[in-house]
Amino acid sequence: MATMASLFLKTPGPSQSLSKTQKTHFVLPLNYPVSYSWRSKFRAVPGARIRCGPLIEPDGGKLMDLVVEEPQRDLKRRQALSLPQIKLSKIDIQWVHVLSEGWASPLKGFMRESEFLQTLHFNSLRLGDGGSVVNMSVPIVLAIDDSHKNRIGGSSSVALVDDKDKLIAILNDVEIYKHNKEERIARTWGTTAPGLPYADEAITHAGNWLIGGDLEVIEPIKYDDGLDRFRLSPAELRDEFTRRNADAVFAFQLRNPVHNGHALLMTDTRRRLLEMGYKNPVLLLHPLGGYTKADDVPLQWRMRQHEKVLEDGVLDPETTVVSIFPSPMHYAGPTEVQWHAKARINAGANFYIVGRDPAGMGHPLEKRDLYDADHGKKVLSMAPGLQRLNILPFKVAAYDKTQNRMAFFDPSRTQDFLFISGTKMRSLAKNKESPPDGFMCPGGWKILVEYYDSLTPAGNGRVPEPVPV
Amino acid sequence: MATMASLFLKTPGPSQSLSKTQKTHFVLPLNYPVSYSWRSKFRAVPGARIRCGPLIEPDGGKLMDLVVEEPQRDLKRRQALSLPQIKLSKIDIQWVHVLSEGWASPLKGFMRESEFLQTLHFNSLRLGDGGSVVNMSVPIVLAIDDSHKNRIGGSSSVALVDDKDKLIAILNDVEIYKHNKEERIARTWGTTAPGLPYADEAITHAGNWLIGGDLEVIEPIKYDDGLDRFRLSPAELRDEFTRRNADAVFAFQLRNPVHNGHALLMTDTRRRLLEMGYKNPVLLLHPLGGYTKADDVPLQWRMRQHEKVLEDGVLDPETTVVSIFPSPMHYAGPTEVQWHAKARINAGANFYIVGRDPAGMGHPLEKRDLYDADHGKKVLSMAPGLQRLNILPFKVAAYDKTQNRMAFFDPSRTQDFLFISGTKMRSLAKNKESPPDGFMCPGGWKILVEYYDSLTPAGNGRVPEPVPV
Repeated sequence: MATMASLFLKTPGPSQSLSKTQKTHFVLPLNYPVSYSWRSKFRAVPGARIRCGPLIEPDGGKLMDLVVEEPQRDLKRRQALSLPQIKLSKIDIQWVHVLSEGWASPLKGFMRESEFLQTLHFNSLRLGDGGSVVNMSVPIVLAIDDSHKNRIGGSSSVALVDDKDKLIAILNDVEIYKHNKEERIARTWGTTAPGLPYADEAITHAGNWLIGGDLEVIEPIKYDDGLDRFRLSPAELRDEFTRRNADAVFAFQLRNPVHNGHALLMTDTRRRLLEMGYKNPVLLLHPLGGYTKADDVPLQWRMRQHEKVLEDGVLDPETTVVSIFPSPMHYAGPTEVQWHAKARINAGANFYIVGRDPAGMGHPLEKRDLYDADHGKKVLSMAPGLQRLNILPFKVAAYDKTQNRMAFFDPSRTQDFLFISGTKMRSLAKNKESPPDGFMCPGGWKILVEYYDSLTPAGNGRVPEPVPV
Repeated sequence: MATMASLFLKTPGPSQSLSKTQKTHFVLPLNYPVSYSWRSKFRAVPGARIRCGPLIEPDGGKLMDLVVEEPQRDLKRRQALSLPQIKLSKIDIQWVHVLSEGWASPLKGFMRESEFLQTLHFNSLRLGDGGSVVNMSVPIVLAIDDSHKNRIGGSSSVALVDDKDKLIAILNDVEIYKHNKEERIARTWGTTAPGLPYADEAITHAGNWLIGGDLEVIEPIKYDDGLDRFRLSPAELRDEFTRRNADAVFAFQLRNPVHNGHALLMTDTRRRLLEMGYKNPVLLLHPLGGYTKADDVPLQWRMRQHEKVLEDGVLDPETTVVSIFPSPMHYAGPTEVQWHAKARINAGANFYIVGRDPAGMGHPLEKRDLYDADHGKKVLSMAPGLQRLNILPFKVAAYDKTQNRMAFFDPSRTQDFLFISGTKMRSLAKNKESPPDGFMCPGGWKILVEYYDSLTPAGNGRVPEPVPV
């Protein structure tokens, strides 16, 4: 993985990272003329004032950092000994990670009821400054059951521990309120059909109460899976973009292997940003690293695949930062894409590439997509608190049989194009067949085949689904 | 009904109604220091700057009036002859009524997809002025089926007719988009359980498409039920409040008979507004007049009951305006209460009284309330676009057995109080029993008993439910 690690260290130059205080003052909000129509390809008007230097300001003006300073950690560990304990699931810990590094800034911990209700009803939070609004579309909450609630009693703080009872964090000034699961699921997903992966995994069997409060995270969250070095925090990403003198950062969220259509899109986006007058647009290639559903390719394999794609020169390492986004996946379509975009603002991105049916999936019960494929980008383009983010709708890429490569789809010659769906791609890789030349770099494809190969057929001859967290 | 009609004509004085242009310029947005906590009883700080004279500005700055001017009507009728027709249900016509008079300002017609999506996801609409936001929490949409859609074809306008083919309105610059009923219901009600009255009545069996556009309503909507004179438009209400020199207008939404607990609350609110420095707070007693579920008391009977309450002097006619709010009822709790409040801003109200579990109902399948009883006021106090409305949480009134009257509940002497639920009230009236003295004025109670008496028992001996629209 050395190649990858070097990616975001390749352009060191003199360190230009700013101190936190400086950042808060240096960073100005963007004020591009913005169109509210999702029809325009670029919401920023070409030729408009181009910002150089400081990155987009984090939501609420300040990037949250909830990790306890080293010298205080032992004290906190001792304090926690006398507190009631709550055991965290793996997904809970992923959310602690997300919160601890400020991806959800200005949130300081698991949501209290006022934040939960605003998220469910408005997909946004009003700040105490008299009216400014930040986007927040998915509830970041911690569920507890009746016995936990009784154990906590009147204590204003609780200790959060992992499955081995190791202290992860202290939650302060707690507020316990009802967990209406049906309402939470209906308002987040727009359906209550059984079979939503995140709901099945983390909500349906969770406790009937939610506990909100301010987090003190004892030490940075690590997974010891060989990938921690790719888990850059928003602050570290901002430092990296600054070090590279990025004057535009465009984020690409993904949870699938990268094929040449993606690569074409990312390369083309950079070209268009250069045309707009930016001097050094940097790509944040940002695979999601938290919980994913059973039939998605696991993070380990995806990272190996991304590495090959970069090794093979499909993307330019000079202008690409690869890092892992620690959030769990909701598969909540237009609701979740806002979270994916908002979190990237906090990491310094001011452009966000949005595809067809982002964060979507099939309806759990009906033979159709759960969401209208266009709603994601439409909702994103109108979402409160995201006006200063430039939304870049995904152009459709397909395999051009006349050129033997991925190209932007040209509706005037439909017959020349081949659409290779994720399902088709998986089925080819499972059967060790090759996709058409030029669909994916050979090194990347090999990793995919290896992954499906690694799923030793079970006794019944069927390939088992990978085990989720 | 003469008594009631006189209510809002009793203080005629010189007409001080403003022209539309004047209104837009005269009316300044309120800027009370506002607390975002729902704990404070009054969000406006006592002693803060008190606005006198002009009423609160309508949403978007201008009250919509979508009714065609008299001289143009015949022309529009002729134009409509060549347009594809859509037949409206009674509920559709109620929405045309709502839209035509500007209750939903700045909406100019049935929602197009961008408005529909913003309503579902954000409960608010961003205006084209660069960022200001108005509240809009329930979808105001028109469903059509495949055959309608085919009939419309490429026509940019359609004629909307009633069940007797009478032309009601023309819808212009139409946009047709998918009606995902499951998602609409889930995001509006926070459940998809079968048995939601509005969904059963108006969504589940409606067409699979929605059609949005700008309305031209041929003439004011009338119902010829003897109650049209109580259906004051927002513009007429504003004129009335101005004529009365109101310097505060507090709205009370209701869909139930008024008992003395309500009256106590309204009287007490006026007292508190006077204490805050207002000179002439006027109450808008505003029963909902559109679709209600089968077991609610029908509008005709409620209006007779309200009339008696006023005749009996329980409320002061000098400072009370009784009028009918033409909206259909969703029973969508915290989502719908925002609509109830927002519509009253457009009618000139700057204070809104919110009760326990507003617009709530029992869960259709489970033995519990569908919504947390406190969520309505919490959501309302945080809702985008409603910051300039002062939210007045309902104080709990109950029957004080020591005084034989309704009084504010005093938790220090619980044993002295009797809670008479709506269910209990209905069951007493159905059985021609009397409630305790002082619960409701005798004239009002008599009407209720008469109503239940009028429901002639069906052959099976069961009292039939009144027929909904």
